[in-house]
Amino acid sequence: MNKKIQDDNIDEEVQNLGLSSKDITKGQRLLNKDGSFNSRRTGLPFWESFNFYHYLVGISWIKFIFFVFGGYVFLNLIFAIIYYLLGVETHLLGVIASTEFEKFLESFFFSSQSFTTVGYGRISPVGFWTSSIAAFESLVGLMCLAIATGLFYGRFSKPVSKIMYSKNAVIAPFKDVSGFMFRIANEQRSEIIDVEVRVMFSILKDVSGSSPMRRFYNLELEYNKINFFSLLWTINHIIDSESPLYGLTKDDLEKGQAEFFILIKGYDDMFMSNVHSRSSYRFDEILWNTKFTNAYGFDEEGRTIVALDRMSEVEKVN
Amino acid sequence: MNKKIQDDNIDEEVQNLGLSSKDITKGQRLLNKDGSFNSRRTGLPFWESFNFYHYLVGISWIKFIFFVFGGYVFLNLIFAIIYYLLGVETHLLGVIASTEFEKFLESFFFSSQSFTTVGYGRISPVGFWTSSIAAFESLVGLMCLAIATGLFYGRFSKPVSKIMYSKNAVIAPFKDVSGFMFRIANEQRSEIIDVEVRVMFSILKDVSGSSPMRRFYNLELEYNKINFFSLLWTINHIIDSESPLYGLTKDDLEKGQAEFFILIKGYDDMFMSNVHSRSSYRFDEILWNTKFTNAYGFDEEGRTIVALDRMSEVEKVN
Amino acid sequence: MNKKIQDDNIDEEVQNLGLSSKDITKGQRLLNKDGSFNSRRTGLPFWESFNFYHYLVGISWIKFIFFVFGGYVFLNLIFAIIYYLLGVETHLLGVIASTEFEKFLESFFFSSQSFTTVGYGRISPVGFWTSSIAAFESLVGLMCLAIATGLFYGRFSKPVSKIMYSKNAVIAPFKDVSGFMFRIANEQRSEIIDVEVRVMFSILKDVSGSSPMRRFYNLELEYNKINFFSLLWTINHIIDSESPLYGLTKDDLEKGQAEFFILIKGYDDMFMSNVHSRSSYRFDEILWNTKFTNAYGFDEEGRTIVALDRMSEVEKVN
Amino acid sequence: MNKKIQDDNIDEEVQNLGLSSKDITKGQRLLNKDGSFNSRRTGLPFWESFNFYHYLVGISWIKFIFFVFGGYVFLNLIFAIIYYLLGVETHLLGVIASTEFEKFLESFFFSSQSFTTVGYGRISPVGFWTSSIAAFESLVGLMCLAIATGLFYGRFSKPVSKIMYSKNAVIAPFKDVSGFMFRIANEQRSEIIDVEVRVMFSILKDVSGSSPMRRFYNLELEYNKINFFSLLWTINHIIDSESPLYGLTKDDLEKGQAEFFILIKGYDDMFMSNVHSRSSYRFDEILWNTKFTNAYGFDEEGRTIVALDRMSEVEKVN
Repeated sequence: MNKKIQDDNIDEEVQNLGLSSKDITKGQRLLNKDGSFNSRRTGLPFWESFNFYHYLVGISWIKFIFFVFGGYVFLNLIFAIIYYLLGVETHLLGVIASTEFEKFLESFFFSSQSFTTVGYGRISPVGFWTSSIAAFESLVGLMCLAIATGLFYGRFSKPVSKIMYSKNAVIAPFKDVSGFMFRIANEQRSEIIDVEVRVMFSILKDVSGSSPMRRFYNLELEYNKINFFSLLWTINHIIDSESPLYGLTKDDLEKGQAEFFILIKGYDDMFMSNVHSRSSYRFDEILWNTKFTNAYGFDEEGRTIVALDRMSEVEKVN
Repeated sequence: MNKKIQDDNIDEEVQNLGLSSKDITKGQRLLNKDGSFNSRRTGLPFWESFNFYHYLVGISWIKFIFFVFGGYVFLNLIFAIIYYLLGVETHLLGVIASTEFEKFLESFFFSSQSFTTVGYGRISPVGFWTSSIAAFESLVGLMCLAIATGLFYGRFSKPVSKIMYSKNAVIAPFKDVSGFMFRIANEQRSEIIDVEVRVMFSILKDVSGSSPMRRFYNLELEYNKINFFSLLWTINHIIDSESPLYGLTKDDLEKGQAEFFILIKGYDDMFMSNVHSRSSYRFDEILWNTKFTNAYGFDEEGRTIVALDRMSEVEKVN
Repeated sequence: MNKKIQDDNIDEEVQNLGLSSKDITKGQRLLNKDGSFNSRRTGLPFWESFNFYHYLVGISWIKFIFFVFGGYVFLNLIFAIIYYLLGVETHLLGVIASTEFEKFLESFFFSSQSFTTVGYGRISPVGFWTSSIAAFESLVGLMCLAIATGLFYGRFSKPVSKIMYSKNAVIAPFKDVSGFMFRIANEQRSEIIDVEVRVMFSILKDVSGSSPMRRFYNLELEYNKINFFSLLWTINHIIDSESPLYGLTKDDLEKGQAEFFILIKGYDDMFMSNVHSRSSYRFDEILWNTKFTNAYGFDEEGRTIVALDRMSEVEKVN
Repeated sequence: MNKKIQDDNIDEEVQNLGLSSKDITKGQRLLNKDGSFNSRRTGLPFWESFNFYHYLVGISWIKFIFFVFGGYVFLNLIFAIIYYLLGVETHLLGVIASTEFEKFLESFFFSSQSFTTVGYGRISPVGFWTSSIAAFESLVGLMCLAIATGLFYGRFSKPVSKIMYSKNAVIAPFKDVSGFMFRIANEQRSEIIDVEVRVMFSILKDVSGSSPMRRFYNLELEYNKINFFSLLWTINHIIDSESPLYGLTKDDLEKGQAEFFILIKGYDDMFMSNVHSRSSYRFDEILWNTKFTNAYGFDEEGRTIVALDRMSEVEKVN
């Protein structure tokens, strides 16, 4: 392969990542471990690029429950204040309270009974304004229920964080040559079907005397597609003379701020949706002369057992 | 390329847009900026081609909230009138009212308490007809809640207006030749995966003495596919001797009522659905001898920053 | 093409329809106009092959509303009978009734107030059994609401009956030869993207003295794919010497019980889902020496107008 | 085909199943009849790999209804205990009870009236703690409703167990040679579109004196794709001299612990989603010199009838 062809190939890779080669020569990691880009956007108003629904679908259950509960208390407080200001004694029938604070509490509980539409009726609204606000609050409550239903469904039906990556990638002898290897595991009890993996290698290179430029290369894989991915898969790039890694040492990777990008696509049979996963290994996450230990075994009935907690275990190779 | 082949190619493009070449020789824009066709359909009853659900999913939040609130008030008014006509004093227990208007208000609030199923019970129905209508209203209220739940979920889960286009396209020197370029940005905080772009060029041509005919050409792109589209992408058609734009001037485009159609496809990782976007640039939206300014930068930690508010910024090229 | 190759090709087509050639020599239509197979299945218990949810999603709105309302009345009647049998006077507080029928009515309305969870409270349950049944009924009511929500969403988000077919197909002179043509229209105000059409022709043939066998052929189309399908598309198979229709007359088609199968695939931008449509034209739905009239026009602003009600209009060709 | 090429081919197949060839030489079935892998995973905490939503979507209706009802009773018991401990007489107005057990029952029914938001109001909460717990319980009730709605929708919209496999596969004379055949049927009243089938054959082989290794081969099918799958399809691999089954006897298959893997992909028109199905036939599920009986017939109107209950019926071939 001559220089011209290589360069064209490089540019294409850069484009394929949606990055411009001249902007990425600094020492920062390009892709975070979780697959997000290590970049920031400016210039857009916060709300234009922020999607509240997807924020609430993406946060942890603890945060979500806190949000639901906090929102409920907050909205009830707002309405309680309104009811209190409109007058508890004249406009809320059946209030049992002697102090102002107790009156406010009764407003608050009346509010919660309207919001949830439980409406026991011991306390009930009288007069135009209090009745109107209560009618409005019940509507708000039902709309919040409608939204919460969508959020719960969105949270439940969203396939998240399914593919685990081994902590490190290894470079180790493989057959007669050596190989770049890492492992992925399927954390969920589902089958991922028609899984495709793509690995790209990026390194800074001195190009004819100018400042170093970041280059991108596709790595050929031993197998880049499997029919199902149920448990564990070791992905392997053979470092033969065709490989862009050929002849590179640990020091070369460090000097070149090397980074390996992993792109995985598949179809999840349980969630019935496409699955995409990305991650990266930096030069300092590569173990040399090391291989993964065997994580397979058999139980007493002859069934295969896979120990997913040992997916990152490695052993030295001499 | 001889005339015969070109013509076949043109016809195909026309078909590919689902248009008939003889019907589109007038001066109107074919595709609106928002990607909708600039055409009208007649002959179908309104309700047969109108989808109420998708109308309500597509409108702005302001309009939607107005619709929900207005619908609530409207339905309650209908039922309030029925309760009022059936007789408030004899068929609604617990009404507190001295004037006819107050009686109507109590009917209205009773209606809202039935519709939302809050049912405080200070006012309650007695007798066959009022009880039956109230039972029916509660059912209607629950069905409206069911529908609203679907609408909220539909609105939240629908990926809308994600891809921003630069205000103008530019024609500027690129490498040794020149290029037709425009920019797209991803407005959302999501990655769009496997993005494919297709650009078509359309111009009126005199064909062997007859009236001018609109012709369509595919434009070859420097890159027509990227793996992810996270921030900003400049799409480039090189105007070499193979290009249908080769040798055309600004005046030629105006005389030919030239229009460029953009078709974008991808998969949104956050919304987990396919994304399609369309837009067009007309001859009067093309800037000549102009290029886009650099919108990339670095923050103090070396991370890439992209200024999306500067995506349409251009500068003169001499 | 020799006989052997043709026969293999035919068998493949048969397989492609999932039918066995020897079973389909009778005179019945194979595919109904609505795209369903004209066949019956036996041997499976009704409930195993019947999907209640999809039945309710597929029926008309009138039927669906009747089902919802009827189900509501039916369930309330069941519970009303139970409350009545458990004893109205002792176990339902606040009942206002003098006759047995009025007592039953009060049971019924109490049931509806429990089912919808409106629970005014004028009538309220006392005692273990009535309270338990009421608690159970409220749960049933909420579960019915949950199911109804899914049904409404399923009905709204399902893309149905989008593609209209012209009443007839025509065989008419086209360019120098002749063509088999039909028209499809997009009934909805949506764009269908990446539309692919496949047309198959089936006819009974005498094969070497045996009883007639049904044969299947793919028809080559002038264009079998368009980028968007917004309004109207005329699909055209040119009957040249390569076509299996070449030289066949109207009588030949009738004798051979000819049938044309249409398969359409696309992606609906509004419903964000794949769209599949099937239909067929039988020999007696083919008009000869006839062509479709022009359904395109322009409004005063130069915008294209398409008259969908004229999609099936034809005119004689001499 | 020489030995080297065969071996590479084998390895690839092994990878395609996501299995490692050296780990699967034991006598256990690899794929269960229902398509799940006959393997176990260890090392992950239960909750990390367990998805509660998908568990509840996947269980039978009986279990699901039991879960809903049991959960309702359980949650109400919890809240009933709290209300009871907070004091029934002072904090719940309107309780009608003389014994402690009756007081607890009233707490329970008050709880159910709060949870379902029916809130008759005969019993209503007074005081800070009881009112607060009741306000919280109503919120919990609504959230449970939101979750139940998602679960019902998930259960209804999930396409499950659609494709039935014939009980046995057969090996029988076909044309001049013989064939490996099995049948699939579409249990649902839907069309499955663009169905693709892949069959793999696996057998233990002695490889150059070492312990037996499990080998994997793709089987070529007569047709591996059909346009629609409405009723019944017989899948056929012709055992000619190219086939890995060529020359193998019943004893060979048993000694080699042979297993046939079936992979089916398609698109379900009714459920509007992709369908994947897997199954396997082991050597002891293969019938020799046997063929499937004809399951097609005609009704009095000439329509095709398919008897799905006869899909597994076979007859001896001499």
